[in-house]
Amino acid sequence: MKIGILGTGVVGQTIAEKLSQLGHQVMMGTRDKQATLAKTGKDNFGRPALSEWLKNNVKIQLGTFSEAGAFGEVLVNATNGFGTLPALESAGKNNLTNKVLIDISNPLDFSKGMPPTLFISNTDSMAELIQRTYPEAKVVKALNTMNAYVMTNPKLLPEPTNVFLNGNDSVAKNEVKKLLMSFGWNDQDIIDMGDITTARGTEQILPIWVRLWGTFQTPMFNFKIVTAKS
Amino acid sequence: MKIGILGTGVVGQTIAEKLSQLGHQVMMGTRDKQATLAKTGKDNFGRPALSEWLKNNVKIQLGTFSEAGAFGEVLVNATNGFGTLPALESAGKNNLTNKVLIDISNPLDFSKGMPPTLFISNTDSMAELIQRTYPEAKVVKALNTMNAYVMTNPKLLPEPTNVFLNGNDSVAKNEVKKLLMSFGWNDQDIIDMGDITTARGTEQILPIWVRLWGTFQTPMFNFKIVTAKS
Repeated sequence: MKIGILGTGVVGQTIAEKLSQLGHQVMMGTRDKQATLAKTGKDNFGRPALSEWLKNNVKIQLGTFSEAGAFGEVLVNATNGFGTLPALESAGKNNLTNKVLIDISNPLDFSKGMPPTLFISNTDSMAELIQRTYPEAKVVKALNTMNAYVMTNPKLLPEPTNVFLNGNDSVAKNEVKKLLMSFGWNDQDIIDMGDITTARGTEQILPIWVRLWGTFQTPMFNFKIVTAKS
Repeated sequence: MKIGILGTGVVGQTIAEKLSQLGHQVMMGTRDKQATLAKTGKDNFGRPALSEWLKNNVKIQLGTFSEAGAFGEVLVNATNGFGTLPALESAGKNNLTNKVLIDISNPLDFSKGMPPTLFISNTDSMAELIQRTYPEAKVVKALNTMNAYVMTNPKLLPEPTNVFLNGNDSVAKNEVKKLLMSFGWNDQDIIDMGDITTARGTEQILPIWVRLWGTFQTPMFNFKIVTAKS
């Protein structure tokens, strides 16, 4: 499948690499392609600049948001919260229409330092804002509740954990479910929570996620819901 | 130990029963003792009125908020979010001073129907509000992220899950930890998240909790954090 990924950070890169390994054609989109490619050295997380990374991932293309939006039959929003609406606007409304848009973003505001707060929460969510802004896109919130390496390789953890789906379109959620299963997620561990408003719950899990990261001193963890045997 | 429990709902009753079974002296506090005892029939959850329940729990005393506050060496806030500050005010500032106050409340607002929203969230929490209002109480948030039956009997679930502690006073958190271990919680499953501001995380987990209740059609579940083996 042709997949367009908006965002070139660690989430975008990790998802792109996984999808490419699985045989999909992948184009990552960025705001300013030349500026992105001009970066050298390492980023804040000690990872190589994207231009270096692309040399090791030659099948993955880099384009503008608009080019990635046009390229993908399915789109992935891997931008950060503040970058999301500008990225989607650059991608272009027509490029979103009738497409599954997997939203991994979180409305985190780090501007006042750690821990971050949420700039949308409680009575609204980032996923709902995207769905309202682009009613003809099929927004499915997924994967935003964990680290990028766990997203694409859940078996890095010693036991099965959960991933949540939120979205209005059942067919779209089913497509995302299939993609997640190809990443290594078990069918029964993918929890369809319901319509897009249920994304309020999955996004508001981020404040405890960030604190647990501090407590465990590693981002390599995930939530598992344990239910009583019926 | 003498323990005062503010609130006579399902959480208050379940905690009171457990503590009494464990040999503690327990007094539950209510706003208006006569009005509480005058209720008959079943409540919204099909449970018997408190006057009936007390007949089966003869060791558990019923008092006013003030009486329960004075009685307890340790206090438990098992009121609902909107009832919390009025209950603590009735309990009396002097009765809270230097005492461990276990806060199980959640700032849930059901006034606009299901799902509820949070009336304090993101940049503040119920636990912080209580701690600010009563700086000489030793507030420890705990147990608010699960059903009352799981709180007092974690082994009802088929595998170990987690309970979170949030509070400024390490000695107080340690006392609460010991109580939780007497309920059946394993030492390693009790996660001390840090100071009272970390309660923002545990309180903001409620929106997904409520939705998962809807998804699973049972409240008998809990969160388990699965970490990569180090």
